[in-house]
Amino acid sequence: MAKKIIVIGSGAAGMTAASAAREKDPAAEITVLTEDSDIAYSPCAIPWGIEGRSGWDEIVMHTPEFYAKNRRIDVITGTKAESVDDAAKTVAAGGKTYQYDSLVIATGGRVFVPPIPGADLENVFIVRTVRDGKRIQEALKGASKVVVGGAGVIGLELAVSLKGMGKDVTVIEMMDQVIPRIADGDMARHIQEHLEGMGIKFVMKAPVQSVDGTGKVSGVTAAGKSYPCDVMIFATGIRANLDIPKALGFDIGQLNTVVVSPTLQPYRRGRLVPDIYLAGDLVQCQSAVYPGATSSQLGSTAVKQGRVAGTNAAKGPEAQFGPVASPWVSVIGGLQIAGTGMSKSLASWYGIQAAEGKAEGLTRARYYPGGKKLMVKVLGDRSTHRIIGAQIVAGEEATGRIEWLTSAIVCGMTAEDFLVRAETAYCPPTSMVRDPIFDAVEDLCRNMQ
Amino acid sequence: MAKKIIVIGSGAAGMTAASAAREKDPAAEITVLTEDSDIAYSPCAIPWGIEGRSGWDEIVMHTPEFYAKNRRIDVITGTKAESVDDAAKTVAAGGKTYQYDSLVIATGGRVFVPPIPGADLENVFIVRTVRDGKRIQEALKGASKVVVGGAGVIGLELAVSLKGMGKDVTVIEMMDQVIPRIADGDMARHIQEHLEGMGIKFVMKAPVQSVDGTGKVSGVTAAGKSYPCDVMIFATGIRANLDIPKALGFDIGQLNTVVVSPTLQPYRRGRLVPDIYLAGDLVQCQSAVYPGATSSQLGSTAVKQGRVAGTNAAKGPEAQFGPVASPWVSVIGGLQIAGTGMSKSLASWYGIQAAEGKAEGLTRARYYPGGKKLMVKVLGDRSTHRIIGAQIVAGEEATGRIEWLTSAIVCGMTAEDFLVRAETAYCPPTSMVRDPIFDAVEDLCRNMQ
Repeated sequence: MAKKIIVIGSGAAGMTAASAAREKDPAAEITVLTEDSDIAYSPCAIPWGIEGRSGWDEIVMHTPEFYAKNRRIDVITGTKAESVDDAAKTVAAGGKTYQYDSLVIATGGRVFVPPIPGADLENVFIVRTVRDGKRIQEALKGASKVVVGGAGVIGLELAVSLKGMGKDVTVIEMMDQVIPRIADGDMARHIQEHLEGMGIKFVMKAPVQSVDGTGKVSGVTAAGKSYPCDVMIFATGIRANLDIPKALGFDIGQLNTVVVSPTLQPYRRGRLVPDIYLAGDLVQCQSAVYPGATSSQLGSTAVKQGRVAGTNAAKGPEAQFGPVASPWVSVIGGLQIAGTGMSKSLASWYGIQAAEGKAEGLTRARYYPGGKKLMVKVLGDRSTHRIIGAQIVAGEEATGRIEWLTSAIVCGMTAEDFLVRAETAYCPPTSMVRDPIFDAVEDLCRNMQ
Repeated sequence: MAKKIIVIGSGAAGMTAASAAREKDPAAEITVLTEDSDIAYSPCAIPWGIEGRSGWDEIVMHTPEFYAKNRRIDVITGTKAESVDDAAKTVAAGGKTYQYDSLVIATGGRVFVPPIPGADLENVFIVRTVRDGKRIQEALKGASKVVVGGAGVIGLELAVSLKGMGKDVTVIEMMDQVIPRIADGDMARHIQEHLEGMGIKFVMKAPVQSVDGTGKVSGVTAAGKSYPCDVMIFATGIRANLDIPKALGFDIGQLNTVVVSPTLQPYRRGRLVPDIYLAGDLVQCQSAVYPGATSSQLGSTAVKQGRVAGTNAAKGPEAQFGPVASPWVSVIGGLQIAGTGMSKSLASWYGIQAAEGKAEGLTRARYYPGGKKLMVKVLGDRSTHRIIGAQIVAGEEATGRIEWLTSAIVCGMTAEDFLVRAETAYCPPTSMVRDPIFDAVEDLCRNMQ
């Protein structure tokens, strides 16, 4: 009899899991249950969509009809999975009961909105779904002043998109730097200055206290000062959606995500739960940098986990998901910022004594036209000398370099070993003959002594 | 007393060694002896220089005056080091005898010109030095038809530059593919077709038999057919310049390069020679892919070795040069081709049974404008499942990806381990959420079973 596989959630993790399951088991009956109306879109694309750089139809990569026709996957939209009974192996959703042999839970996360007065006023938005994007686009038509709450990657990408649409943009952030937590202050400063140069205003060290207005937003109060606006958008981070795992009594880790095995199975009071796999923002990851837990709310991580969860849902627990360094990159106003592993502040939060090495150079040979500035920072653990993190700010070509450093981190290279064994590909139009990364690691070696 | 350090050779390896020695020993007397007149230039830049994309003065990064003034390095140009006496610790050059405490030999390689009739005719060139580049530029003024001998990376870059100058360009290659040896035929074909689309002509499987003409070149004969031309340029590869190592009786390996320790010291009849360090094209490298020797005639390798040799010349043998995967990249007519580790043909030459995995994708998210095609091939060793090589052809962003794969190769990752542990940085304008490299490695895993 055909295996029944149910996937809850239609984001990057869920749809990847469903597709992987189909690939591994051509005969399975695969059903996706989702409360969303648009599926399989990239939340990272919403800022580009709002600006009109990418069309909404392009961002939504595939429709339910596509999945039905091409992959024989039954996607049931607008249908929230209310509960799971893992003894009976059933999911209750939309008044029906669905039977499963394997279940993938990929319910993702929710945008965290601080519990402040006025957050429910008209023209106050979060930025997560295509529907959010379309609503924001509509509200922006009559707006001139926009406040973005939160200077994380999504907040900054959004600020640039809004500026590109001719709006007066103010970003309000409670920490003292942009991209807090994952980027160090010195690297983040380059991005903030670049954006200030584009006319985007920043209010730092200012927690949003209230959203003000009558019916409709007219301003935001932060750190005692008022900032008038026509539209307010919260980009204040994602919290894992733990409704189903908590109801099932799954073990929740100290980072408020679900503890899983390398095969992405949850535990209940320390015992592995069979036939259920998790993927995406609600999963606790193992760190590739230190022996312990971390979280990785990245699209790339969700897709990788989705592939493991879907494979295992189809074939039993044979595929594994490894420890993560969680490399990330963002193009913000033409400047790229990328990072991997731990930032210095995160390292100190984990009790790791980090040393740093820094260097500057160009993205091309000095004599080759069009080269852009490349700034590198590499972090090492003073006790093991292992490379534990890196950040790059550059006009181009940051992505591949951060993947290169990620590979070194994941393989446990020390800074000294990196200098002996790492290599770069050189061609005048794409690189310097000695990559600035080597200078940064050499600086790190000196600073660790 | 100040240490006397002599460096023979003023290319990337030699000048890097001299600069590293200065950095490590502020008091040393450092002298560079070179038969060349221009120093510290990038041979990889010559094709760009000929086309005028980079000025000759920009390509020559630093002058002897710069080194004298800023680094207190005495660069003696136009002075060939005739012999070394390592018992007396002297170098004979230009009628003088120079005493040393440590010596760096970085005499590089010479362009191999096949021993055929007519290779000494007027308007027949090699492409290695700035002087070669200037002469070619001069000769091209009255030329319309140009033949390039050799379809390696430099030959193809040159062909594109010549085409950009409006010349009628024919590339003649003895092998059946462009970029033989380091690229596989299926990947190389994309480059050849791209260049044919630009109007560059190719004559394959055709060893050049003679260069024809009276006084001046008028044509080239290859595989029995004649190809008229006004200028002929050989880009037929580099052979190590072994004059000094051979005269000193240093051990030469089976690849016709000098056998060295990880500290870049030569051997004489199996015994380490003290106080002499080698760097650049004449050095035999250890492979990161299989336990044995390889050669790595790359600028990036020369610079890395120069830094080790210079450090050791100043401080004694403390720095090491590791095994190489030799990543390379070239931008040829707007298309990028990059590789690392072994090609399939090279693997079979070393007795390694290679399996391959292939995939295609884009350099950006599907919905983000401007994305370019990305083709990946990954090679694995059937017996160990280790990744042993990779090649990428893409419209952009090949360099960093090949460095990422190089790091995986150098760390000895298996294909299966790569799927569990490798990670990508995702942002719609710079990458897909699942990089095509993962698909290629998955394909490789299937093909190794």
